[in-house]
Amino acid sequence: MSLALSLGRRGLGRCWPNPAVGCVIVNNGRIIGRGVTAKGGRPHAEVIALSQAGGMARGGVAYVSLEPCAHHGQTPPCTDALIKAGVSRVVAPLTDDDPRVSGKGFAQLRAAGVQVTTGVLADQAVLAHKGFFLKVTQGRPMVTLKLATSFDGRIATANGESQWITGPKARRWVHAMRGTHDAVMVGGGTARADNPSLTVRDLGVQHQPVRVVVSRKLDIPTHSILAETARDIPIWICHGTDADPDVCRKWADLGARLFPCDLIGRQLDVASVLQNLGNAGLTRVFCEGGGALAASLLNAGLVDELVGFTAGLALGAEGRPGLGAMGIDALNDAPRFHLIDTQNIGGDVMHRWGRI
Amino acid sequence: MSLALSLGRRGLGRCWPNPAVGCVIVNNGRIIGRGVTAKGGRPHAEVIALSQAGGMARGGVAYVSLEPCAHHGQTPPCTDALIKAGVSRVVAPLTDDDPRVSGKGFAQLRAAGVQVTTGVLADQAVLAHKGFFLKVTQGRPMVTLKLATSFDGRIATANGESQWITGPKARRWVHAMRGTHDAVMVGGGTARADNPSLTVRDLGVQHQPVRVVVSRKLDIPTHSILAETARDIPIWICHGTDADPDVCRKWADLGARLFPCDLIGRQLDVASVLQNLGNAGLTRVFCEGGGALAASLLNAGLVDELVGFTAGLALGAEGRPGLGAMGIDALNDAPRFHLIDTQNIGGDVMHRWGRI
Repeated sequence: MSLALSLGRRGLGRCWPNPAVGCVIVNNGRIIGRGVTAKGGRPHAEVIALSQAGGMARGGVAYVSLEPCAHHGQTPPCTDALIKAGVSRVVAPLTDDDPRVSGKGFAQLRAAGVQVTTGVLADQAVLAHKGFFLKVTQGRPMVTLKLATSFDGRIATANGESQWITGPKARRWVHAMRGTHDAVMVGGGTARADNPSLTVRDLGVQHQPVRVVVSRKLDIPTHSILAETARDIPIWICHGTDADPDVCRKWADLGARLFPCDLIGRQLDVASVLQNLGNAGLTRVFCEGGGALAASLLNAGLVDELVGFTAGLALGAEGRPGLGAMGIDALNDAPRFHLIDTQNIGGDVMHRWGRI
Repeated sequence: MSLALSLGRRGLGRCWPNPAVGCVIVNNGRIIGRGVTAKGGRPHAEVIALSQAGGMARGGVAYVSLEPCAHHGQTPPCTDALIKAGVSRVVAPLTDDDPRVSGKGFAQLRAAGVQVTTGVLADQAVLAHKGFFLKVTQGRPMVTLKLATSFDGRIATANGESQWITGPKARRWVHAMRGTHDAVMVGGGTARADNPSLTVRDLGVQHQPVRVVVSRKLDIPTHSILAETARDIPIWICHGTDADPDVCRKWADLGARLFPCDLIGRQLDVASVLQNLGNAGLTRVFCEGGGALAASLLNAGLVDELVGFTAGLALGAEGRPGLGAMGIDALNDAPRFHLIDTQNIGGDVMHRWGRI
């Protein structure tokens, strides 16, 4: 099961809108098939593993990192494939929250005489499928918020110098993290200030996450790297319903996909932004700032994982803050997270936190 | 040697102005004496260990965490004691930087026919004696700067609420760290805002570090906890040469020891503050803020160790910054530190950094 989960995690960031599932088929103590949901979500892990196993799957055990699907979607149900292959037992950590599955997969297997064991490493599976479950239950993707700061929480000097606060190893980690998410998201201010490409680089990764820019007025220069690469790597823009239609048309012509989102007062409603992204199929979004977008997401309770990189330099109070204004007066009102892990990454402190 | 270093570290914070030294005497494979420099610096570790060993020291090996003293100070030289006890060999990590010793200890031992081995675990010894070496070479104590902040580097909400950002385990660690320093130091603003006691609590520690307040005008309320406990636990005040003499007299009457320090422009010169504290015998100072004092120390290059506690809550840009203004425009001008250690302390991230 540990191997199935590990295989499944390899698919994170490239299976959406489907969950990234891993499957291992064992017979007579030998692994005879492994699979991970393919790019774009098809074929499913079980089908790949079964095709590797061939006739040897008969009487074997299938370890699957999520309940096998029981419905006819764009592929036939995996339960059928497992039953047809003659698998004698299926081990899975937990039930799929997708209402189209939701226990039906296990029921179909049992009805066909296949033994079903659940609950194995369920904690790990909950983490791995968090984004997919949030999408099917709440309609929004999981959000990981990353903040790379100085020792005193600053992301740039007063005049905006930010390259580089953290070291090359930490930046490489960030690229690897981008690669395990369906999309990388920044606010319009960051897109304007940094002229970023928001791609996964130097890791031999072929697949690129979608690039999402959240900008109420869509006032991002069209001579930016994002604009120039819009035809090669998807760029999605979440703008306010009040954005200038001419500007919207210009970006659509450049190849961007546009999402008109609701406003709350004079600001974009981040809940609406995430609902739009969930409707478009995203399950995991990696937000890299800026401070205003990060503060809005935190205030709305929409950050599922928080990742900090803290560097050993001091910038002082004039430096630019990593989080914008949040209007918090009492400590009890501040959003709190629990520590998952902390590590020395090439001389910077990496700390990962989850929702409480 | 590892045991001798570990014994020596137990003395940190209570041996000043002397170094905290550990000594282990071994004969025929058995430990027959251990010592650590006693409170206030006397008797020395070697003398305590030799007295435990008695006649069995003859022909034995003495492991000492620093070169034994060779001069008549308030105690006779330890070299004499070691020679007289008939120790055949002395193992020590490094030479004492104190000009009164500085190789003379080893020379005297060798001259008396005692074998001397040096260099063993020298890295650890350099760390352990950093404060003492700084005092004898630069005339100032070592400074450890502690900062306990939210995920985004804030030490309080906009209206000053700061209790508690970090959890009970992290706060207990801070008390233990206070205990390994000769003094706990804060700025006047923190003394006014928090009305702290600056003592080591809940650890069964008898010995209390000196409490140092750095306040140019000495405008700290005399009905504070610090003032009320000034007769029980030393309180030293570093004030500007321009402070009101009446206020100075009031604090002296309360039992405080006063240090008039130089100004640079309208601010206290932190280098002068530390020279004064070094002259008074301090070797290790633990600074707990506030932001202005911390920024001054960092800007002056006077922070030797940086300790951060990062909690999993977000306070936003209106929150009070942990470091005051530093006037840094370019990243290259920012003081940099290298990561020594990072750990999960009861759900908060502890990160320790050293000077580069």
